Amino acid sequence: MTTNRTSTTPLTLLGLGGMGTALARAWLAAGHPLTVWNRTAAKAEPLAAEGARVAASAAEAVAAAGLVVVCLLDDASVGEALAPAELTGKDIVNLTTGTPAQARERAHWARRRGARFLDGGIMAVPPMIGTPQAGGYIFYSGDHALFEQHRETLAIPAGTRYVGTDAGHAALHDVALLSAMTGMFAGITHAFALMRPEREVKPTEFAGMVTEWLRAMAAMTEAMAWQLESGDYTEGVTSNLAMMSAGNATLEATAEEQGVKGELLAPFMASMRERVALGHGDEGLAGLVDGLRGGSPQR
Amino acid sequence: MTTNRTSTTPLTLLGLGGMGTALARAWLAAGHPLTVWNRTAAKAEPLAAEGARVAASAAEAVAAAGLVVVCLLDDASVGEALAPAELTGKDIVNLTTGTPAQARERAHWARRRGARFLDGGIMAVPPMIGTPQAGGYIFYSGDHALFEQHRETLAIPAGTRYVGTDAGHAALHDVALLSAMTGMFAGITHAFALMRPEREVKPTEFAGMVTEWLRAMAAMTEAMAWQLESGDYTEGVTSNLAMMSAGNATLEATAEEQGVKGELLAPFMASMRERVALGHGDEGLAGLVDGLRGGSPQR
Repeated sequence: MTTNRTSTTPLTLLGLGGMGTALARAWLAAGHPLTVWNRTAAKAEPLAAEGARVAASAAEAVAAAGLVVVCLLDDASVGEALAPAELTGKDIVNLTTGTPAQARERAHWARRRGARFLDGGIMAVPPMIGTPQAGGYIFYSGDHALFEQHRETLAIPAGTRYVGTDAGHAALHDVALLSAMTGMFAGITHAFALMRPEREVKPTEFAGMVTEWLRAMAAMTEAMAWQLESGDYTEGVTSNLAMMSAGNATLEATAEEQGVKGELLAPFMASMRERVALGHGDEGLAGLVDGLRGGSPQR
Repeated sequence: MTTNRTSTTPLTLLGLGGMGTALARAWLAAGHPLTVWNRTAAKAEPLAAEGARVAASAAEAVAAAGLVVVCLLDDASVGEALAPAELTGKDIVNLTTGTPAQARERAHWARRRGARFLDGGIMAVPPMIGTPQAGGYIFYSGDHALFEQHRETLAIPAGTRYVGTDAGHAALHDVALLSAMTGMFAGITHAFALMRPEREVKPTEFAGMVTEWLRAMAAMTEAMAWQLESGDYTEGVTSNLAMMSAGNATLEATAEEQGVKGELLAPFMASMRERVALGHGDEGLAGLVDGLRGGSPQR
């Protein structure tokens, strides 16, 4: 007779902020023996009542399980919390928000101390953790053997999406998606500002059109990707930079008419104008990517 | 016995650029008697071979039918082309790209000359015209009786979406959606630039994640709309401006690490920072809309 060990792997969790607490509850609900630690011990009390074992120090928490999940404020806190702990033979999964370079450095640091290291980037917000909405909105990268061994345990709070052995890639995917979203939110904010003076247009009615339109137009991402992969930025272009840049004049004039500052869209429109002026008006949006690159990546 | 007059309403089309030609073909294919005019007559030749009647002047074309669709380069061209024409009793549908104020002024102008006026904003690109993909991506506003009378004819190239009696509202919806899209494209461009140095990440694989993520996050538009409608920008907020603004530090640091200029996202991040500094960190994105408004709309 075999027992399903995977579903009840004991683990340790360092950090009980909003996200850490949500993660803890997801693992407790799934029946995992869980040891928690938080710098401010009071935050652990409700979880103790739900079955978590509360460690008195980070080192004690790390000693309690082979799988150690870290979800602290920032990378410096991770270094501080783990400094006094014995890491040899441990599997460290770092869900602390940070940059790709921080994740890569932390991976080296952990390996030097005898641990395996996996980095994760959580796209979901705490209320989504443990619900189907969070499914897959968590990237993992780094030690593949660690990931495979603990995949089912890691999948419990928000699913998993493994994006490679480079420990920096989870954070990079996370940041890249959040950056794309930030641009989209800027556009939506501008759109609402344009509509603001029109009392006859209900924001909720207009919102439905925006959502539907953006969902349809998000498909343009794939066209850009094909162009970036082939290196031919004119490939399959229906609306080229020259056409889009000409159309921007109407967008700018309308913003002025409606009393809206154009600052959120201005830099992107300027980059289109510059690319067209350089004689690349027949390119698609992919033609703007390299112009954004201002230096070499730091490795 | 009644005949279905609606489906074969004769109409006139002024302007045979890429969009005008696509519109002409859609109406010809649907069996509508069509008179066309273009300043450069050669562009009408292929359409004549497909059954269009070619008028020698705009005035002659306008005289040929009660329903006159105009799709010229800009609003000035509309004024010029229609100046010598007799407009009394005509139904003018203006699909020329322009600002809301231009549409409103053109509507007054047309009414003074005895015509009914409807303005339209086409979101679809010419290759989509006459295909199901274009469905509904054309806004109409202005004279409602005109719209109702010709709804079926107008629906042929790209469907219809009537957004009110204010002749400026079609252009405003068009520009607002294009503006939101411009922001989204800026974000996607930034995201691809972040990924550019990573040779192991295929742009086409990454694109699928971006598209899926943006489609999910576009739903935030509805949350913003509810807040704008209620006037309480903190209503139902899970990720507030303070949290987003704190997270932006990681986005900025990552851009620098990856050698990417932050210019496309910087103005929006600055607006979040300012709003938080003003003590509104508990608001959602709706809290940024009014700050974009720099003046009164021109009416």
